[in-house]
Amino acid sequence: MAVGWTGLPRLAPVAGIRIGTAKAHIKKPDRRDLVVFELAEGSVCAATFTRNRFRAAPVQVAQRHLAGREPRYLLINTGYANAGMGEQGLRDAAASCAAVAELRGCRDDEVLPFSTGVIGEPLPVGRIRAGLPQAFEALAEDAWALAAEGIMTTDTVPKGSSRRFQVDGRSYTITGISKGAGMIKPNMATMLAFIGTDARVSREALQSMLSEAVRLSFNRITVDGDTSTNDACVVVATGAAGGPELGADCAELAAALRGVCEELAQAIVRDGEGATRFITVDVQEGADEGECERVAYAIAESPLVKTALFAGDPNWGRILAAVGRAGIDDLDVDGVRLYLDDLCIAERGGRAAGYSEEAAAAVVGKPEFAVRVRLGRGSARASVWTCDLSYDYVRINADYRS
Amino acid sequence: MAVGWTGLPRLAPVAGIRIGTAKAHIKKPDRRDLVVFELAEGSVCAATFTRNRFRAAPVQVAQRHLAGREPRYLLINTGYANAGMGEQGLRDAAASCAAVAELRGCRDDEVLPFSTGVIGEPLPVGRIRAGLPQAFEALAEDAWALAAEGIMTTDTVPKGSSRRFQVDGRSYTITGISKGAGMIKPNMATMLAFIGTDARVSREALQSMLSEAVRLSFNRITVDGDTSTNDACVVVATGAAGGPELGADCAELAAALRGVCEELAQAIVRDGEGATRFITVDVQEGADEGECERVAYAIAESPLVKTALFAGDPNWGRILAAVGRAGIDDLDVDGVRLYLDDLCIAERGGRAAGYSEEAAAAVVGKPEFAVRVRLGRGSARASVWTCDLSYDYVRINADYRS
Repeated sequence: MAVGWTGLPRLAPVAGIRIGTAKAHIKKPDRRDLVVFELAEGSVCAATFTRNRFRAAPVQVAQRHLAGREPRYLLINTGYANAGMGEQGLRDAAASCAAVAELRGCRDDEVLPFSTGVIGEPLPVGRIRAGLPQAFEALAEDAWALAAEGIMTTDTVPKGSSRRFQVDGRSYTITGISKGAGMIKPNMATMLAFIGTDARVSREALQSMLSEAVRLSFNRITVDGDTSTNDACVVVATGAAGGPELGADCAELAAALRGVCEELAQAIVRDGEGATRFITVDVQEGADEGECERVAYAIAESPLVKTALFAGDPNWGRILAAVGRAGIDDLDVDGVRLYLDDLCIAERGGRAAGYSEEAAAAVVGKPEFAVRVRLGRGSARASVWTCDLSYDYVRINADYRS
Repeated sequence: MAVGWTGLPRLAPVAGIRIGTAKAHIKKPDRRDLVVFELAEGSVCAATFTRNRFRAAPVQVAQRHLAGREPRYLLINTGYANAGMGEQGLRDAAASCAAVAELRGCRDDEVLPFSTGVIGEPLPVGRIRAGLPQAFEALAEDAWALAAEGIMTTDTVPKGSSRRFQVDGRSYTITGISKGAGMIKPNMATMLAFIGTDARVSREALQSMLSEAVRLSFNRITVDGDTSTNDACVVVATGAAGGPELGADCAELAAALRGVCEELAQAIVRDGEGATRFITVDVQEGADEGECERVAYAIAESPLVKTALFAGDPNWGRILAAVGRAGIDDLDVDGVRLYLDDLCIAERGGRAAGYSEEAAAAVVGKPEFAVRVRLGRGSARASVWTCDLSYDYVRINADYRS
C-alpha cells in the first residue's frame, strides 16, 4: 500500500471532458484496462513526453498527431507498453487511433494514443477495438476516479488530484490523474498523467505553464533512476468555464497546475515499487539549482542510502558519501551540513556535536521525513522526492514478466 | 559465495615486500583485521585514490605522505573506515602512523594508512597500536593470502591475483590483493587494492601505468553505483628482481599490471553484495569511448535490469530503455543491436527476427554472461563489469550497521 495513502481524493469533473472506461481483457481478465477521454470542440491540449531515445510507438504517434491539430480523443490502454516493437508498434498505434476515429467520426490524427505495461510484446489491437464500444457507452463527466484505476499497472492505488482556483472572481476546476510505480525517473515528462481544466488558455500559454510545472514536479521524482520509454503528461484546457483567455502569466492557473502536478508526482513516489517510506531530499545553499539537483539525485538514487532508510537506519555516512560523489569538484566538505527533518546530524566533515542516534533513528523510523543538505555555497535550492529500496522492490521486478 | 569462485589463486611472494597480519579485535573478535606491508628500501610506490569529495581521513593522510617521500610501511585496518570523522579522524590516522614509526624506527610520513569498514565511528587507535607488535612479528614474504583475508569487510571471499612476466629474458613477479563488495563504483581508484612487483621502475612510470590500468579495470566496475570514501589502489615496485629500470612504455609490465588489476576488479564484482551473476556489459560501435562507457553504466546500474537478470529474465525491453536514457541525444535507435553473449535479441527498435525466449533465457540463466550493445555509430568500445541485484543486497545493506 502506498505510503501515507488515505484514499483517492474527490476528483471534480471538468466541464468539456467526458471519460469512458472498459474492461477489455487486454492482458488480464476482469480488470479496467481501457480508458478514453472525449474533449469538447475548442479544447486546447499541451503535453510533455519522455526524453528516452527509445520512445514507445504511441509516444511517437501522439507527438506527431499533436503537432498537427488539436486532439478530440485520448486513448489509453494498460497491460502492454507497445515499446520496443519497431515498425509493427507504429502500425498498431495508428490502427488503434483509426478504430476510435471510425467509431466517433473524427480524423485519425485527432486521437492521441497512450500505452503502459510490459515492453517488447505486441499490442493486442483486436482487444482494444473490441473494448471501445463499451468504453464510449460509458462516457461521463464524473469518471476521473474510474480512469485513475483504468491506467494502473504495478500501481497499488489509483492517483488523482483536484482543485478549484479563482481568477478575477471566476471559478475554475483543474483535475488530474497519474500512474506509475517503477521505471520512474521522468525526464521532461513522467509516466502517464492526464490533467484537465475548464479554463480557456492558448496552447502556447498552456504548454509553457505545463513545462514549468513538470520541471518542478514529475521531473523531480525518482524511484529507481530508470527513465521510462512511455512517459507522457497531457493537460487539456476546455474553456467550458467561460471567461477571458488566461495568459501564460496567470499566476492562479500556474499555481493550481503545479499543485496538481506535485500531488500526482508525489503519489507516484508514495506508491513506488516496494516503498515503505516517502522521502523528500531537499538540497539548499547551492551555487546553482543544477548542482542542488545533482546532489539531491545522488542521494535519492543511492541504493546504499535507500536500503539504510528502508531499515530505519540513520546512516549519515552513506548520505555524506553520496554528496561527495555528486560531481561538485570544488565542494568544501567542511561547509556541508546534513539534517534529518530539522535535526542536524553531520557538519564539518563528521558527526554533528550533540548527535543522538536515538533522535536520528526516530526521524527515519517515520513513514515520511526529509533529508536536508545545506551545501554552504550559495542560495540555490532543489528538492527531489523518492522512496526507500526494500525486498519488495526486488520481488516485484524479479517477478514482473512471469 | 562469490560468482565463479574457485578459491584464491596461489599468490607468489614479491621480493622486497614482507607482510604481517594480526587479529587485533578492532571490531569483531577472532578476525584477522590488521595488516602491515614492509617495503624494502629503494621501493617505489604509486597510487590512485577516491575522487569522492568526502575523502576519508586515512586517504587524506596517505596522499599527503605519498607526496613527500617513498613509503616504507603500509598500515591497513578493517572494521572502521575512519571516514566522516572530521578533525578527530585526521588525528587518529596520524596517530596510527606514529605508532608504526615508533616501533620500526622510521619517520611518520613513511607510513601510509588505509582503513575500511563502517563510516562515522571513531577509529580504535588503541587496539591498532596494541595489535602492531603481533603483526610485525609475523612479517614474511609469503603472506599475501593472509593479507587478502585481513582486509575483508562484507567480502565473502579473499581476492588476489598473481602472475609472472618477462622482459628481455629476465623474469619478474607481480602480485596483488583487493577487497570490496558494496559501495562499489570506483572513480579513479577502487576499494582497497595493494599490488607489488619486484621490477625496477621510476615512480612516474609506475604512476602512469597504474593510472591507465585502473582506468580500464577498477574504474570499469559497479555494484551499486556508490563511490566509496576510502577507495585506494597502491602499487609498489621493489626492484629486487634486479635488471634495468623499466620505462612507462614497457608493454610487458603494463600488460601484467593491467591483467592483475582486471582480475582484482572482477573479483570485487563477483563478490558484489548479494551477487548471483557476473555480467560483462560490452558496448561497441560507439562514436567515442565516453558514450560507450555511459551506455554501459546506464545498463550496469539500472535496478530494473539488475533485478531482471537476478530472476534470469532476458528482459531486453529494460535494457533498451537503459540505452535510450544514457544521454546520447542523437542516437538512432533503429541502428542499435542488442546481444546476450552472441545471441542477437533486439534490432531496429524491437525484438530481433528469430528471437527465441528460451534461447535468451538460457544465456541469462548462467552465472556468467555478457550483455553486448552495438550502437552502430562508430568504432569505439568500452566494457563495464557488474552483478545482479538480489534480495541479499537489500538484506546485507539493511542490516550492515546493526
